[in-house]
Amino acid sequence: MANWEEIAAKKRQTLKDSIPPEWVIPEDLLPPDSVDDVTGFPEASGWFTPEELAITNSNALELLPKLASGELKSETVTRAFCKRAAAAHQLTNCLSETCFARGLETAKKLDEHLARTGKPVGPLHGLPISLKDNFHLVGLDSTVGFVSHIGDAATYESVLADLLREAGAVFYVKTNVPTAMMIAESVNNVFGRTVNPLNRKVTSGGSSGGESALITFRGSPWGVGTDIGGSLRIPAACTGIFTLRPSFGRFPTLRCRSGMPGQEAVQSVNGPMTRTLDDLEFYCKTVVGAEPWLADPRCLPVPWRDVELPKTLKIAVMWDDGMALPTPPVTRALKEAVEKLRAAGHEITVWSSEDQQTGARLLDRMFVADGGKAIRKELERSGEPWRTEMGAYEVAEELGTSEMWQLHLDRVEFQKRYLDRWNKAGIDAILCPTTPYSSVENGKFRHVGYTGVYNVLDYSCISFPSGVLVDKSIDKPTGDSYKPMTDLDRTIQAEYNPDAVHGMPINLQLVGRRLEEEKVVAMVKTMLDTLS
Amino acid sequence: MANWEEIAAKKRQTLKDSIPPEWVIPEDLLPPDSVDDVTGFPEASGWFTPEELAITNSNALELLPKLASGELKSETVTRAFCKRAAAAHQLTNCLSETCFARGLETAKKLDEHLARTGKPVGPLHGLPISLKDNFHLVGLDSTVGFVSHIGDAATYESVLADLLREAGAVFYVKTNVPTAMMIAESVNNVFGRTVNPLNRKVTSGGSSGGESALITFRGSPWGVGTDIGGSLRIPAACTGIFTLRPSFGRFPTLRCRSGMPGQEAVQSVNGPMTRTLDDLEFYCKTVVGAEPWLADPRCLPVPWRDVELPKTLKIAVMWDDGMALPTPPVTRALKEAVEKLRAAGHEITVWSSEDQQTGARLLDRMFVADGGKAIRKELERSGEPWRTEMGAYEVAEELGTSEMWQLHLDRVEFQKRYLDRWNKAGIDAILCPTTPYSSVENGKFRHVGYTGVYNVLDYSCISFPSGVLVDKSIDKPTGDSYKPMTDLDRTIQAEYNPDAVHGMPINLQLVGRRLEEEKVVAMVKTMLDTLS
Repeated sequence: MANWEEIAAKKRQTLKDSIPPEWVIPEDLLPPDSVDDVTGFPEASGWFTPEELAITNSNALELLPKLASGELKSETVTRAFCKRAAAAHQLTNCLSETCFARGLETAKKLDEHLARTGKPVGPLHGLPISLKDNFHLVGLDSTVGFVSHIGDAATYESVLADLLREAGAVFYVKTNVPTAMMIAESVNNVFGRTVNPLNRKVTSGGSSGGESALITFRGSPWGVGTDIGGSLRIPAACTGIFTLRPSFGRFPTLRCRSGMPGQEAVQSVNGPMTRTLDDLEFYCKTVVGAEPWLADPRCLPVPWRDVELPKTLKIAVMWDDGMALPTPPVTRALKEAVEKLRAAGHEITVWSSEDQQTGARLLDRMFVADGGKAIRKELERSGEPWRTEMGAYEVAEELGTSEMWQLHLDRVEFQKRYLDRWNKAGIDAILCPTTPYSSVENGKFRHVGYTGVYNVLDYSCISFPSGVLVDKSIDKPTGDSYKPMTDLDRTIQAEYNPDAVHGMPINLQLVGRRLEEEKVVAMVKTMLDTLS
Repeated sequence: MANWEEIAAKKRQTLKDSIPPEWVIPEDLLPPDSVDDVTGFPEASGWFTPEELAITNSNALELLPKLASGELKSETVTRAFCKRAAAAHQLTNCLSETCFARGLETAKKLDEHLARTGKPVGPLHGLPISLKDNFHLVGLDSTVGFVSHIGDAATYESVLADLLREAGAVFYVKTNVPTAMMIAESVNNVFGRTVNPLNRKVTSGGSSGGESALITFRGSPWGVGTDIGGSLRIPAACTGIFTLRPSFGRFPTLRCRSGMPGQEAVQSVNGPMTRTLDDLEFYCKTVVGAEPWLADPRCLPVPWRDVELPKTLKIAVMWDDGMALPTPPVTRALKEAVEKLRAAGHEITVWSSEDQQTGARLLDRMFVADGGKAIRKELERSGEPWRTEMGAYEVAEELGTSEMWQLHLDRVEFQKRYLDRWNKAGIDAILCPTTPYSSVENGKFRHVGYTGVYNVLDYSCISFPSGVLVDKSIDKPTGDSYKPMTDLDRTIQAEYNPDAVHGMPINLQLVGRRLEEEKVVAMVKTMLDTLS
């Protein structure tokens, strides 16, 4: 065993050992590996008390008023989520760090505060929230999947963590990611692979795939992930939950670990991952309401704004992105949504995919602009090898600043062209797939173009469950008569396996303009009313 | 004569020839070179009609209602400013391009529109506005001082030009800049040097120094410049007019010529240059009110907001930046301002210069990050030599993308440190010099640190006339007992020449946080009320 492997194995053991015996699933209750869907475990196993189930099955907005009034103690709620998160990890490998003791201590202090003052400390009083691995919490590693970062515990907290803590949130776990957060599944050489609790043969997506697995298992009421090419939206889509990719500057990003520190041509952002749209909206209001621009110099001093939607929306549908057709269930979900929206009186037009490939190529160039140096440096520090998923970084050549400036110019031209088309079309939103997949078998996620183009554009996007589930009896493969648009498309269609994804939820993506977070939230509300 | 010199000479001749004979100052009226202050020429020469004088002596807000009502014809107003701009150029070399025919044609069409419809086309109906050379207008060059760009007329207009034109503005001239707009005086190998109409021995500043000279001579009611290190604020200070350096994203910057295209580590912005604060505010409201974010993808969808100031402001004074003491008149103006502000009940604290040098060094590194390649390319295209002022670009080495990412990280850390200090101090604004000078003899402007640090921070800054003028009988040199803080400081103090700048206006700089344009405007209103 190489030195890096030993270090990684030890880290995994430490993580495992951080789960106290009472939260280790008894061996006789542990579902065998052959069980795909483990989301029924908490109810079926009998290992959770009714109170634990009632708490953890609740959404944030159901718990917050009870925590604020003292009807529920934060300690009770936190303990229940700790236990269920521990179970989630044992079943899906979704955690990277735990700080259960810190969580319980925070919770007790909040309970004391409420008892003493009669007042909650803030809008998130006493509610646990899970954080993606790259948010720094004092005393915890933020490896982002690199062996080199093991044992380098944070000495300060991310600005967003400060904000959430001051609003009353309780931290108790951090969640797994892929190496450098630059793979669309959550797999790395430290913690291995996170799988989807709805079906452990398929991915929970990435890079915020520890979050999506945990939240879907209800090991967390809600969590925070990040997105530079789809890393919030893809895992939300793979598990059927909600997320908002905000434009850069709405939520604070300072003092987080990046896979490519200082890269700014396309900006990483963070956002909530929730099981309801109401939870998502409340999170946004809370974070923006805390005036994060006073703590993060790159945040914009823009309050959370009221929006009034037109009675009927004008929505452009992008059926495919010209690079890869969505797999059949995704196209069906999109069709059903369009039919219902049209029936409800909304105006539907088509959004041409003519610019999508240009956007995707720009993103590719930005990601590898340093010739993979930032990632290579971390690998070399520990001797950890390149994962095959990171091939593009391994072979990339570094750009000089002059070439980088040209790339900036190309990006701005692209942004302008897209904006002009949007204006000309006079639309409120684009409705399109989040990914070509509902989810996909582990190791087979091949295309982030549906999300990544909107990172280049910095648009406001929500990935939301359409309400449609994969049905293998309807969602047949494209068949031999289908002429693939690209080699990538050929592979994706060939690999589509209705048996593997049968029953999986299907998300769609609603795209608003840059800095229209409030409007996309309101529009998705309308969508949900219409689709339900 | 080298080929590039011939091309440049021809360009200068073309510019000269673009002034129609009736606007060429008769030789017997032309002030000799020995006359320093030429601002009295329009009144003293008898060459202007009373109507021409009345019009051109008016500010924007005096002219706009008359234009909107038809009391004044746009053609009359435009013709008067064309003539006075032509005179300004003949006396200070402030123009780079003219489009008098276009201006008069636009004006006539606007007059016809008003006569026909009874309505102005927009809030700027019929009023001329001058533009810095780097704004593209169809059919005109935008050389930004490079011989290589001569004869490469624009085929499209800058987004800001579109916006202003649609609001009713009339374009008639563009104004001179230094090479690549990267020198703090307006001098280049194409058009030569722009001088200050208040005193032709001193500079009108740079890089928007053609604008400041033109506006100060009243050859334009107002104009637009740009700022990446002080290029609005320095020329405003050198001539005693107003300008706002907005944070990036308030005003559209798309489709302008840059000296370093694609450079984004510090963003160039544009802003108004005016003779009154009311004109400045009206310009801002008009531009932001036109929703520029629909045309420029990098603009922020933030409307012009109402602000309510606290009754008393908390203002931190930065007496010097630790790199160069202001020359004596600037320190005196700052002292007088502070005394009046304190007397009016405002709270005054001191802003330490501890971070200024770090900020200035960051800016230096950003400017030359491409190893001067962008500038070298333009010089090599024509064979034009490096100007001595551009030495830093000539010898710079290009950074790799990886090093550039590190520079981004250093910049964000700096921004965070400054923001934290601001919060801790609990201040509304920093009051400080705009430059170490009132103005300075041509060729001797040596320090942009007072402005450039705020470009790195992207703060909202106004440079405004303090009302104090240099008085050589009071503003004595520091003297032999003064211990300079740096070699730069030694040079600046040694070169301070009270005789050269006697009577010159002295501007100060008021700095607000990022994206607090409305607040700095309101605060400068308070300042003016207090200082007058």
